[in-house]
Amino acid sequence: MNILVINCGSSSLKFQVINAESEKLLAKGLCERIGMDGSCITYENKADDTGKEFKEVPMPDHNKAVSLVLSALTNEKTGVLKSLSEIGAVGHRIVHGGEKFTTSVIINDEVVEAIKEVSDLAPLHNPANLIGVDACKALMPGTPMVAVFDTAFHQTMPEKAYMYALPLDYYRKYKVRRYGFHGTSHSFVSKEAAKVAGKAYDDCKTIVCHLGNGASVSAVMNGKCVDTSMGLTPLEGLIMGTRSGDLDPAIIDFIAGKENLTAADVVSILNKKSGVFALSDGLSSDFRDLEEGYLSGNKYAKLAVDAFCYRVAKYIGSYTASMNGVDVIAFTAGIGENSSFVRAKIVEYLGYLGVTLDEEENKKRADVHRIATADSKVQVYSIATNEELAIARETYALVK
Amino acid sequence: MNILVINCGSSSLKFQVINAESEKLLAKGLCERIGMDGSCITYENKADDTGKEFKEVPMPDHNKAVSLVLSALTNEKTGVLKSLSEIGAVGHRIVHGGEKFTTSVIINDEVVEAIKEVSDLAPLHNPANLIGVDACKALMPGTPMVAVFDTAFHQTMPEKAYMYALPLDYYRKYKVRRYGFHGTSHSFVSKEAAKVAGKAYDDCKTIVCHLGNGASVSAVMNGKCVDTSMGLTPLEGLIMGTRSGDLDPAIIDFIAGKENLTAADVVSILNKKSGVFALSDGLSSDFRDLEEGYLSGNKYAKLAVDAFCYRVAKYIGSYTASMNGVDVIAFTAGIGENSSFVRAKIVEYLGYLGVTLDEEENKKRADVHRIATADSKVQVYSIATNEELAIARETYALVK
Repeated sequence: MNILVINCGSSSLKFQVINAESEKLLAKGLCERIGMDGSCITYENKADDTGKEFKEVPMPDHNKAVSLVLSALTNEKTGVLKSLSEIGAVGHRIVHGGEKFTTSVIINDEVVEAIKEVSDLAPLHNPANLIGVDACKALMPGTPMVAVFDTAFHQTMPEKAYMYALPLDYYRKYKVRRYGFHGTSHSFVSKEAAKVAGKAYDDCKTIVCHLGNGASVSAVMNGKCVDTSMGLTPLEGLIMGTRSGDLDPAIIDFIAGKENLTAADVVSILNKKSGVFALSDGLSSDFRDLEEGYLSGNKYAKLAVDAFCYRVAKYIGSYTASMNGVDVIAFTAGIGENSSFVRAKIVEYLGYLGVTLDEEENKKRADVHRIATADSKVQVYSIATNEELAIARETYALVK
Repeated sequence: MNILVINCGSSSLKFQVINAESEKLLAKGLCERIGMDGSCITYENKADDTGKEFKEVPMPDHNKAVSLVLSALTNEKTGVLKSLSEIGAVGHRIVHGGEKFTTSVIINDEVVEAIKEVSDLAPLHNPANLIGVDACKALMPGTPMVAVFDTAFHQTMPEKAYMYALPLDYYRKYKVRRYGFHGTSHSFVSKEAAKVAGKAYDDCKTIVCHLGNGASVSAVMNGKCVDTSMGLTPLEGLIMGTRSGDLDPAIIDFIAGKENLTAADVVSILNKKSGVFALSDGLSSDFRDLEEGYLSGNKYAKLAVDAFCYRVAKYIGSYTASMNGVDVIAFTAGIGENSSFVRAKIVEYLGYLGVTLDEEENKKRADVHRIATADSKVQVYSIATNEELAIARETYALVK
């Protein structure tokens, strides 16, 4: 069965077609600037590897975007499907499932309503995700659809980890608590990590460092997430590309007062103009630039990289205490998979756990590779995440 | 030389007289409700142990309070001094020294000005502290005075630990950064900890858990603080009596919107109505009540204690990574010194470090006592903090 995987944002739509049995990627692509001037679609046939096509084409709405995707997939020359009937199911990435969704579910009217209900926890994402659901429903009526939530994997956290020390009414009335995000990635990578380490998933303490432009760490003990660094929103935790991560909550009001801003303005700055971008004094949020800056002696690039790595190391230390030990540490996502520089800097802090870096292995580039020495007391891997494959698997499992 | 130690708040004034050479406490006391109805003074002669005196007496201002203190100290019957000339120096606790003060200093006009300059970082505390300085100056002109800062000990933190991932302008213009508090206690206890562990202070990795109604953790490596959990203000870090500690910064605006409050209102709730008090559903901020509630099956008391201990354990784990190891862990302040229950719960997480609790030793009560087994890989102590003695030592060192 072929699965169409959709990740729909407010003005973009990413898609992949994956064969569920072979787990082979057949096609992938991206619609950008939906509803804006200069909208365009990128499409790649990965079955025959016929290369990337790029086309500027008006997309007044998501229905048009989805219809262009379906046309591309069934195009006589470059398509990978003979007809839409070859799509057995659609898997949608949904950002926030609140406390309601602890696993993926087949989408029906009730599910759509429930996703709407938790939209105030992710006002930028959930409504956009649902537009993608609506568009697919309109163009492929009858094809089963599955919602795969970014938050679901973390729903196994114990109360002591997910409750903030706030008046309980905020939890009772508004469900203010830690949810965590990147769940599909943390789930996928923690499973892969246990596998390559030769451990049973349900008898393994794993720390997954998902280090991309957004970044989060999770502690996965015996197959269950027990803690994660993102919170009510994706702002908490690690220093990210443009997000501050953890800071003294009193700073928001302090800066609002000094700069004559609202709290919402300050939170927007914490999301969009902070992180390594800010620490590098505006140099870049891209770690390739920061690494280059660091090596050429730019002191702010050094500060950004040092503070980033230090924060990750502290979370690894913290989650080792959460689980009273750790068997496997996995790095994933853009920075985690590609920056041997960052990985080495983080691992430097972990000698006390018996982690010893293998410098040669660390420099290699592969989907899955060990970066600690073979006799390291805690095993450390770089593992390519694949959220689309994870969504396809979840979707297939529910509809087959 | 006798040192008068003053800790002056906006409506209270704590004092002690300590002999600097013998380090013996001669007298202590407290003025409360200064400038309010029902003001009162408590005084104890500790030299002869003549017991506690309590007196309601009008104190329209701090000058009156200081003059009452000085009268009590030189009272013919219950005083410990023949005349004020027997006070060789006054040591003042000053909350915030900003980046300017990295050690204690003798107070002169310039120092007073500099303390005023950083008052916007501690608007409730620094002005009150200075009122105490002024009152002493008026009543004991010529007696040298020393400022001992709560923040000074933490000024050795490296940039990667004290910089928030915020636009650098906020640091440049307003000095927004991590400062940390309870520095006098962290300094005192880390020195004691190295001593009892038989390690050289400048070759020892220590984590100090100052667990009182306000609570913070510090990492002290080779005699220098390298990280601490409180930040720009004392709100960040651990879950405290009524303070939330760490949370997703986006929560402030989220709650402000839901409850129609200003950011300042929310920060005030985070300071005054959160913490274990909130998690216990308003049961108490006092750990004796919470422990009792926990043991009698109150689920919110259990949540409060579990979340508190879990947070402390995570910080210990985190700071172990900061220092790439730990030699000694010390518990201090009200909860840290008195609650064997809490200490045991925290230590449960630390088996992976080779920490083994000695249940019998843990139950003992002494100013300094080991709570791990003798062969524990990391040594763990309960150590009574003594901020007043530390202030007296600093004061004496500067004026002798």
